[in-house]
Amino acid sequence: MINTLRVVTLIVNNQKDLYTIAELADMVGGEVIGDLDLEIRGAAGVKEAGRKQITFAENEKVLRLAEESEAAAIIVAQNITGCKKTIIRVKNPRLAYAIVSSLFVPDVFYKSGRAPSAVISESAEIGQNVSIHPMVVIEDDVVIGDNSILAPGVFVGKGSRIGSNTIIHPNVVIEYNSIIGSNVIIHGGTVIGSDGYGFVSTEEGHYKIPQTGNVIIEDDVEIGANVTIDRGTSGPTVIGKGTKIDNLVQIGHNVRIGPECLIIAQVGIAGSTELGKRVVLAGKTGVVGHIKIADNTTVAAMSTVTKSIPPASFYSGNPAQSHKDELKEQAALRKLPLLIKTIKEMEKRIRILESELQNESQNFNN
Amino acid sequence: MINTLRVVTLIVNNQKDLYTIAELADMVGGEVIGDLDLEIRGAAGVKEAGRKQITFAENEKVLRLAEESEAAAIIVAQNITGCKKTIIRVKNPRLAYAIVSSLFVPDVFYKSGRAPSAVISESAEIGQNVSIHPMVVIEDDVVIGDNSILAPGVFVGKGSRIGSNTIIHPNVVIEYNSIIGSNVIIHGGTVIGSDGYGFVSTEEGHYKIPQTGNVIIEDDVEIGANVTIDRGTSGPTVIGKGTKIDNLVQIGHNVRIGPECLIIAQVGIAGSTELGKRVVLAGKTGVVGHIKIADNTTVAAMSTVTKSIPPASFYSGNPAQSHKDELKEQAALRKLPLLIKTIKEMEKRIRILESELQNESQNFNN
Amino acid sequence: MINTLRVVTLIVNNQKDLYTIAELADMVGGEVIGDLDLEIRGAAGVKEAGRKQITFAENEKVLRLAEESEAAAIIVAQNITGCKKTIIRVKNPRLAYAIVSSLFVPDVFYKSGRAPSAVISESAEIGQNVSIHPMVVIEDDVVIGDNSILAPGVFVGKGSRIGSNTIIHPNVVIEYNSIIGSNVIIHGGTVIGSDGYGFVSTEEGHYKIPQTGNVIIEDDVEIGANVTIDRGTSGPTVIGKGTKIDNLVQIGHNVRIGPECLIIAQVGIAGSTELGKRVVLAGKTGVVGHIKIADNTTVAAMSTVTKSIPPASFYSGNPAQSHKDELKEQAALRKLPLLIKTIKEMEKRIRILESELQNESQNFNN
Repeated sequence: MINTLRVVTLIVNNQKDLYTIAELADMVGGEVIGDLDLEIRGAAGVKEAGRKQITFAENEKVLRLAEESEAAAIIVAQNITGCKKTIIRVKNPRLAYAIVSSLFVPDVFYKSGRAPSAVISESAEIGQNVSIHPMVVIEDDVVIGDNSILAPGVFVGKGSRIGSNTIIHPNVVIEYNSIIGSNVIIHGGTVIGSDGYGFVSTEEGHYKIPQTGNVIIEDDVEIGANVTIDRGTSGPTVIGKGTKIDNLVQIGHNVRIGPECLIIAQVGIAGSTELGKRVVLAGKTGVVGHIKIADNTTVAAMSTVTKSIPPASFYSGNPAQSHKDELKEQAALRKLPLLIKTIKEMEKRIRILESELQNESQNFNN
Repeated sequence: MINTLRVVTLIVNNQKDLYTIAELADMVGGEVIGDLDLEIRGAAGVKEAGRKQITFAENEKVLRLAEESEAAAIIVAQNITGCKKTIIRVKNPRLAYAIVSSLFVPDVFYKSGRAPSAVISESAEIGQNVSIHPMVVIEDDVVIGDNSILAPGVFVGKGSRIGSNTIIHPNVVIEYNSIIGSNVIIHGGTVIGSDGYGFVSTEEGHYKIPQTGNVIIEDDVEIGANVTIDRGTSGPTVIGKGTKIDNLVQIGHNVRIGPECLIIAQVGIAGSTELGKRVVLAGKTGVVGHIKIADNTTVAAMSTVTKSIPPASFYSGNPAQSHKDELKEQAALRKLPLLIKTIKEMEKRIRILESELQNESQNFNN
Repeated sequence: MINTLRVVTLIVNNQKDLYTIAELADMVGGEVIGDLDLEIRGAAGVKEAGRKQITFAENEKVLRLAEESEAAAIIVAQNITGCKKTIIRVKNPRLAYAIVSSLFVPDVFYKSGRAPSAVISESAEIGQNVSIHPMVVIEDDVVIGDNSILAPGVFVGKGSRIGSNTIIHPNVVIEYNSIIGSNVIIHGGTVIGSDGYGFVSTEEGHYKIPQTGNVIIEDDVEIGANVTIDRGTSGPTVIGKGTKIDNLVQIGHNVRIGPECLIIAQVGIAGSTELGKRVVLAGKTGVVGHIKIADNTTVAAMSTVTKSIPPASFYSGNPAQSHKDELKEQAALRKLPLLIKTIKEMEKRIRILESELQNESQNFNN
């Protein structure tokens, strides 16, 4: 089993321009077959890998492509025995590739110190090695942990806290009192802590219910671009540890998302709904408010979840139901136009039967 | 009946750290049962309310929770007679709570004056007590009314007008010639006045139709985060008085939204469509262009509205139809897989009947 | 046939406050009937056109409105013979209107030079007549072509290249190594080059697959507001020449969109999917990853495309299928509730037939 924490430490401490295959194999717990001293300067997919780069192959078909590619070496599964090129054999090639590839990611946002144009409150507590880019605004009483990066145009509202090793991409808005953990990544244009959508409708109009809660984003969360996560009405909206959120997702006030969930692009989750651990919501799915989706449940793309879902379910449709039932309905629906013809014919046959039987009966009675 | 205007004036003039229950009851037109001098320092939901805070209960179940909570006092409906804690009895507890809660909202964006880093055209007319934060850009001929707030990174394009007491959250983009009313709130990352999507398709490509209209946002409107409202092709796109728009909503060019509509997250409305008064579009609903949705109509979540809808309707589905019809179809669809079995059995029975009848007939004829 | 390139050159070289009808007719290859010296100072739709403006009419009904409007002149089709006002007769009135209207678009974002507050790397190569607004950040090794405009708050990451005559609206984020062509328009708040959504799920959590590819946006592309286009995992995400993308669209990593596609608001396209030439995806449609949508195909609004689509198709539904089949199913579904009644009645009639036949048979046998 790969110890991810050890790997991350290795990466942070060791980042350099080239590695030998032996060094890479050691990091991912793999075995080299071929030239141990081969030098690797990058990692790329099988279509893009160049002469000094390593790629990976999860199956025989991709392995053949990788052998024909320019790649210097290939990460493969343990059952692969022979290859024209130097290989690293590992339990999980995709994971090993992800780790090796991490070594070569350009560190484009790290710049030590504070840009002169950044506006930083005197009451803010900024950790060691924090990188504060131009046009950043940090308000009163903000606390930022070591090694975190605030890219250009980021706003951090009053009283917010950001952990260590967190990267906030350009033009992200973090409203007041937000709490953001360590090793978090937030992509460009995302808004954390906008007011929840809460109004009391009266005859005079819709009166705003103040939204005085906040947003808590736990460690190891990644959030895509132009996402919106509303603050709680009172109490927090929570994104659990290790959850990964894609672009243009909407999270309503007081939603609680468990650890390690996967929330794909353009999903929307309405207020006060709770997601358990490792819930997967595929693209564009909508979830109504005040329900619970239990651990390990997956909901297919473009579904509408209107009531709570038990653990380890696979749901789909609008309104969402067990995927098995949804598929049955879809299949039945596909047959429906033909079915209507069949029914019309059956009705005709019944009419004929009825009239024949009547005749028969009359014949008999005559 | 609560006079909201009076309440708002009270709030603006009286904001302070603590209020007695008697003061709060006076503001919301309520009656205290219990300690009139009890001091309240905040308001929160029943799950979050602390020792010095007031909460509210709309039904008996929540009232029991509120009694067991740390809350100092509870806002309740007029039919509640007894309670372990001090209560304020009102006609509409949720509305009274919203008003009381407004008293304690932290004023995080108000800062008097103009940040040195803001770039403000000399031809801009800025009212009294306007708060212009760092990194704001205000272009030529802009007019901004008294007490409005432009948070960090806001852009206000040439010739735009913003009323009084309006709050524009960080990194909002207001393109040229936009007109925004008073008491408006626009949340982070929203873009007002982007070009409408208009092209003439020719064999050479799609030729852009210039979008030279603008956007008009009337008083008391609230717009969520990362919303997009396109400017008209010529003429305006209009958001009517008191309408509330949630996050990630798309409003096309020349759309006209009536007063007091509720447009929930991720809704999209295509060009030139008109919404009447108090229309509600639930989350993720799409509306095609050039149609009318009449007053007081509600459309359920994830619907696709493809034609005009009469007043006071409740529509749902794709394509949207009367919700009653949609429910009937959904229920019928649920039965369809079983129905197919039934039909197959029926066909078999008809075949047997046909063959028996033939036999019979032969028997008879023999 | 109009030569668009010639027209664009005319516009750039000739922009002025007023034109005679004869000048306008020359630009659009049209024929004037009426006063050749009539001066025109603007263009607008038939509802908005004022006294000195020209409008257009594509049919008789609009022509009647245009005649009653304040407009000074009307662009009409070649079959129109008489009109109360001066007309320009052309092959394609909408296209001619678009061209004429382009002459009068206010140039609100053009400002020569570099704003003092912009932060521009010394290693950036900036072309002639580039307009760099306040709060812009341009990082190392960026190249920007002549006449391009970077509106306030734009971020251009390390190593990115932008062509000539390109307009980037306020608060757009362009992450490192992006390549953006000439004559491109990107509206406010859009994020180009955010990380693709790629993780390896292990028992310990979801391990990030580094996203080291980039985004390539070809010439003549227009991208709406608050759009997100992810960088490739390795290799590029490509938006083909002349494609027009509406607001709030999500484009996943390694997607390749062909030339002259139309992608309407709130569409989402998952990773590695390819679109051919002139594909149209209507609003809110979702497309799964790793499929191909061939040339000239149109997909209706709110559809879910789950498998590849052949050329020149018209698809709709969830899952998407041939629109003809989808319509048949929809029509059948509408009949389903009545059908269930019919089937119940048929079953009853069969039961009666069966019992009658049994009686008959018994009668016969007796």
